[in-house]
Amino acid sequence: MVNAETFKGRNIISMREFDRAEIDFVLDTADDMVKLEQERSDLLKGKVLAALFFEPSTRTRLSFESAMNRLGGSVIGFATPAGSSVEKGESLADTIRTVSQYSDIIAMRHPDEESSRMAAKVASVPVINGGSGPWEHPTQALLDLHTIRTAKGTIDGLNIALAGDLKFGRTTHSLAVALRNFDVKCHFVSPDSLKMRQDVIDDVEGKLDYTETEDLKSILPEMDIVYATRIQKERFSDPADYERLKDAYLIDKEFLRGAKEDMKLMHPLPRINEISTDVDDTPHALYFKQMRHGIYLRMALLALVLGAV
Amino acid sequence: MVNAETFKGRNIISMREFDRAEIDFVLDTADDMVKLEQERSDLLKGKVLAALFFEPSTRTRLSFESAMNRLGGSVIGFATPAGSSVEKGESLADTIRTVSQYSDIIAMRHPDEESSRMAAKVASVPVINGGSGPWEHPTQALLDLHTIRTAKGTIDGLNIALAGDLKFGRTTHSLAVALRNFDVKCHFVSPDSLKMRQDVIDDVEGKLDYTETEDLKSILPEMDIVYATRIQKERFSDPADYERLKDAYLIDKEFLRGAKEDMKLMHPLPRINEISTDVDDTPHALYFKQMRHGIYLRMALLALVLGAV
Amino acid sequence: MVNAETFKGRNIISMREFDRAEIDFVLDTADDMVKLEQERSDLLKGKVLAALFFEPSTRTRLSFESAMNRLGGSVIGFATPAGSSVEKGESLADTIRTVSQYSDIIAMRHPDEESSRMAAKVASVPVINGGSGPWEHPTQALLDLHTIRTAKGTIDGLNIALAGDLKFGRTTHSLAVALRNFDVKCHFVSPDSLKMRQDVIDDVEGKLDYTETEDLKSILPEMDIVYATRIQKERFSDPADYERLKDAYLIDKEFLRGAKEDMKLMHPLPRINEISTDVDDTPHALYFKQMRHGIYLRMALLALVLGAV
Repeated sequence: MVNAETFKGRNIISMREFDRAEIDFVLDTADDMVKLEQERSDLLKGKVLAALFFEPSTRTRLSFESAMNRLGGSVIGFATPAGSSVEKGESLADTIRTVSQYSDIIAMRHPDEESSRMAAKVASVPVINGGSGPWEHPTQALLDLHTIRTAKGTIDGLNIALAGDLKFGRTTHSLAVALRNFDVKCHFVSPDSLKMRQDVIDDVEGKLDYTETEDLKSILPEMDIVYATRIQKERFSDPADYERLKDAYLIDKEFLRGAKEDMKLMHPLPRINEISTDVDDTPHALYFKQMRHGIYLRMALLALVLGAV
Repeated sequence: MVNAETFKGRNIISMREFDRAEIDFVLDTADDMVKLEQERSDLLKGKVLAALFFEPSTRTRLSFESAMNRLGGSVIGFATPAGSSVEKGESLADTIRTVSQYSDIIAMRHPDEESSRMAAKVASVPVINGGSGPWEHPTQALLDLHTIRTAKGTIDGLNIALAGDLKFGRTTHSLAVALRNFDVKCHFVSPDSLKMRQDVIDDVEGKLDYTETEDLKSILPEMDIVYATRIQKERFSDPADYERLKDAYLIDKEFLRGAKEDMKLMHPLPRINEISTDVDDTPHALYFKQMRHGIYLRMALLALVLGAV
Repeated sequence: MVNAETFKGRNIISMREFDRAEIDFVLDTADDMVKLEQERSDLLKGKVLAALFFEPSTRTRLSFESAMNRLGGSVIGFATPAGSSVEKGESLADTIRTVSQYSDIIAMRHPDEESSRMAAKVASVPVINGGSGPWEHPTQALLDLHTIRTAKGTIDGLNIALAGDLKFGRTTHSLAVALRNFDVKCHFVSPDSLKMRQDVIDDVEGKLDYTETEDLKSILPEMDIVYATRIQKERFSDPADYERLKDAYLIDKEFLRGAKEDMKLMHPLPRINEISTDVDDTPHALYFKQMRHGIYLRMALLALVLGAV
């Protein structure tokens, strides 16, 4: 049976390691955090989160820090490897071993796919993957699910499109894998050169009801959720490819005519030009509220992994 | 009537938006903070300040952070835009919307004049302007007033010189506008090419008794306060202009002969060579104590805007 | 008599300023912190540490921050001078005077040898030296002593080798000076061009029983403690010298055959290739535990200097 004990001391590395009951439990705990946030909680008083960001981040880093602070805990770490011993040539393993001695839990982002898994092996405290190269971003997937469940009342039964860069976009990888636990219809929408990563396809095959298409417009009328992603410049080796593809999935108010009235548009942000600002004031825009769920979800994970709930 | 409610949830963007009663109330609240600081207060426990510094800062950033900590609150944010989503091309508006979801109040510094006002429009939490390009720096003006009032017992009736770079120096802009609410004689002292910005002149005209001069020495004997400012290298397009002008207002011990015994010298710091270190030990030097008032004043503003007093 | 009062308000600049009774008292206080850490202490609630790192650091900065947080205090500061007023040309003295106004205690690292001593002169709060160029790193020496005493039960009577770069390695300077207070046999092991700095030799002469040698292997069988240090690339003016010398003291499992079974290997970290990872799982490896003592020792120093114990 899944309960709080299930998560105590556990590493949060990949959505591949979560089943339906576990996801539901985390989302329920996130629900509880909405109330706890108002109460100036001391749940994690005296606990220290190490936030180690080897790659730029605004949302993931600041929301982890805010979540820890909201529960009375404190934060050490770095926002860039500049100014840390990484500059002196220290191995990632040694940096993780070090930080393990100074903290109760580690949240990290790193450009290498295997970084979080490796860190969890050498760390003496639990590790939460805050983005491991193009591979996975499990806390984002969980907050995305919490956003959907809160907005729609359910996740099961929905038509969900994941659109944009599905090859390099780690948020869509984690979300697709997470969705295999739900009774949804999923649509992978991308240019042919940015199709959903094969290992994700392998992992959802036979478990998730999905289609692949290049054409968002034609499936739009049936969608309950459209999850757009950034075409990430830093993932392209050839700048010309980036320039050619970046506008392919530009969503504006005009584009959304024909969508269901209660279709909700999500995005992990930052957006560059995938969603026009003229969409912001429409009832479709869920991407700002979505960030708020990052606080609740990360409060829940920190509290669960630290054994405080 | 002005009371604590006047400030609850309010954006602090410009000294143009403060009248005399409001300034007095903020300074009185800062007086109260002197005592509160000793008491290890929990006034802002559970509250999160987002400190967003898109431009370098030591004093403003660290004093906001210290003020928040002194009142039991915590801080998230960044000291440089490196390592944040700004590097990925995110718009300022989206960054502000994001941080609004993670915090209870935002303090920001940005090179664009309109940055704070724009941020206040899109933010869902109150915004405090910690320096908006060359335009304004209202919390500095308020701490300057608190410094003067504490040192002199009053602001009314004083002879005050604002000296140095009055064209680009945002602290003098905010202070000049603030002083229009007081019965003072103000002297704008600068090289002709760095004269007080025209929109400030327009805003104080008819309200503030002021003169303009290039010659600090000749008016020095009558001054109660001399407020010197840095000739900021980063504001010049031509380095030669900077080299020519930077020594024009160098104040040393010798220069101060002829000043009133109780004339107080202020400076927003950092100083480069506007004030010689041989002045530091004289009774004229008020610029180190001035920084201390930054803590009290910012404690007061945070507590007021967050509705905690 | 040495007691808590001895340390209240005191600057911690150099191991030259500590006698045996003082060292013992600090180590005893660090022992107490092991228990206090579990208790979610509020000992330093409302207190603010300014952590000013003008040079890169992971261990020293993060362990000071964690230590402060563990005792209920908070931290302001910077991990690199980028984004601070140092970039605008402010003097170190003015930066320290400023930060003094915002904090209760300062911990700093700076490339200049005299930085901490100078800072202590101008600061209005106590200063702790977190590394002053190649000169000293006293909190590291104290945590090293705490590690040894905990592992061995005593420091007196031990055979201790300090190996590697003894010319530029500040940790060995502070540790050698600290050890002159103990009844140990000390061995300075280095290539001839990186021999122990002369002023350290002068300071320990007649007080510390020491030898100098180039050959670690030959003295290894008698050693109780081998303290290896990094050959620091950034200390060499000629990269060729670095390349030639960096492998001279590479310790691996094979090298350690012949060492006493309970010989403990220490290192201030980061290591580059001075200690092979194949040593990590042997009972000789004490260098990861060593970092943990950084928390206890710095908790003790912060509490003592702030007069809280």
